[in-house]
Amino acid sequence: MPEASPLQAVRASIGDSEFDRDTAVTLREPGVYDIDLSAGWTIISAVNGGYLLAVLGRALSDALPHADPFTISAHYLTASQPGPAVIRTDIVRTGRTLSTGQASLFQYDEEGREVERIRVLASYGDLDTLPDDVRTTARPPALPPMDQCFGPEDGPAPVPGSSAITDRLMLKLDPETLGWALGAPSGKGEMRSWFGLADGRDPDPLSLLLAVDALPPTAFELGLSGWVPTVELTVHVRSRPAPGPLRVSITTRNLAGGFLEEDAEVWDSADRLVAQSRQLARVRLG
Amino acid sequence: MPEASPLQAVRASIGDSEFDRDTAVTLREPGVYDIDLSAGWTIISAVNGGYLLAVLGRALSDALPHADPFTISAHYLTASQPGPAVIRTDIVRTGRTLSTGQASLFQYDEEGREVERIRVLASYGDLDTLPDDVRTTARPPALPPMDQCFGPEDGPAPVPGSSAITDRLMLKLDPETLGWALGAPSGKGEMRSWFGLADGRDPDPLSLLLAVDALPPTAFELGLSGWVPTVELTVHVRSRPAPGPLRVSITTRNLAGGFLEEDAEVWDSADRLVAQSRQLARVRLG
Repeated sequence: MPEASPLQAVRASIGDSEFDRDTAVTLREPGVYDIDLSAGWTIISAVNGGYLLAVLGRALSDALPHADPFTISAHYLTASQPGPAVIRTDIVRTGRTLSTGQASLFQYDEEGREVERIRVLASYGDLDTLPDDVRTTARPPALPPMDQCFGPEDGPAPVPGSSAITDRLMLKLDPETLGWALGAPSGKGEMRSWFGLADGRDPDPLSLLLAVDALPPTAFELGLSGWVPTVELTVHVRSRPAPGPLRVSITTRNLAGGFLEEDAEVWDSADRLVAQSRQLARVRLG
Repeated sequence: MPEASPLQAVRASIGDSEFDRDTAVTLREPGVYDIDLSAGWTIISAVNGGYLLAVLGRALSDALPHADPFTISAHYLTASQPGPAVIRTDIVRTGRTLSTGQASLFQYDEEGREVERIRVLASYGDLDTLPDDVRTTARPPALPPMDQCFGPEDGPAPVPGSSAITDRLMLKLDPETLGWALGAPSGKGEMRSWFGLADGRDPDPLSLLLAVDALPPTAFELGLSGWVPTVELTVHVRSRPAPGPLRVSITTRNLAGGFLEEDAEVWDSADRLVAQSRQLARVRLG
């Protein structure tokens, strides 16, 4: 475990943490929600895509008869800014075990017209009704103990753009995937880290949507720098995570034609694979 | 290469094959398309999910200013039947390099009311404008030569439910992933096959949407039998495929709680990774 920080000394609980306050949506009318996107989850000048997905996921959790995202696909259209936004949801189908919904997040242009930022399609269920069995042999990622891993606080900005979001996360990166921070990227499309919320809030299905998109891009280890904007991100939540830190492993097999995929696996403290995700992102090849 | 069949002796070309005729959509009014879903792509009694995705992908290719699916996510709502269907598309955003659209496929209930079968969200671009570079070290799957692999025609129904779709596909499965057909599943979530269209039509971005969902389910090699309905399927098309047979490799890492993921990679004859997909599917454990 990392040394207790002042924040962690008073652990926040699920429902009463900064993440919960910053993803809270307010019902305006049936299916329509208002939110003030927090500046606290920005990296460089962009609002983090995982935070935005959690915001949309929360609105759908309220709009649909089922509470937990089983599979949620987001297409990122235009860059979101901190500030007011409106989420419009649409119930596509409600079933006994799964319900499907759609949601769009809009912000406003200078004339006050709505501009769509993200559109999401998702199927929700109830994770607590699933049988407990696991029939596969997948193993958690080989990560060194947390005290042998490194976060933004451990060096001269090893994670670039020491921006707002890094204060809200507990990230401890595997030194084996930190070559890029020392000017020696491995050439392998891998990134691994311990993950938590800085205020000690335990993970839940919504924070998993943040976890899959919170590490530095694998492109850094492939020797690229600069912005890697997400085109599409799909997350499968496979189990309710146990309390305690998560381990996140991201791999890229195919960087080609100016695009790459990032595949994330998220493992909980009980060694269970709790989420899988894949995103398609653009890279600027130089 | 497989022995030339009578069908392959007269190779169909892209645009003039059974697959093209059976995915052809007819514009009814702007954004709305009619189609008669062919019974030729059914497995047991269900219309194949990859064929349905290709149908929706074709409608979006017509509706959007860009022709090629870069990333397409489908949520499967109710089971499609051969017969009439209508596709309603919605242009979400048009950009210079990418455009995003939505499409839904509906059929009709006994009272003639529309019932939604599938909803899709997709971003399209132009594959021919992408730079040619490949910067990763991913390798094609290790598949034996085609004449050492086996298809439905090679035995007493090694692929179960010798149904319509198998006549339209050229599938040659890796013997290492055929244990299930001999009553000895490997216990590994792997399925590998050569893939083509039986009439010899070369692959294109639309037929890649079929290729990712055309193999027997990995669940068979995990010792399960029965139906594995898709909840959600996302495909990334990464490059226009070269002429010739494709190799498809599917893996499952996590079968748990009654769900599993299937990750597909599709490689072309030029050893290029042309598509990646992931689906979440339900399994009947028992």
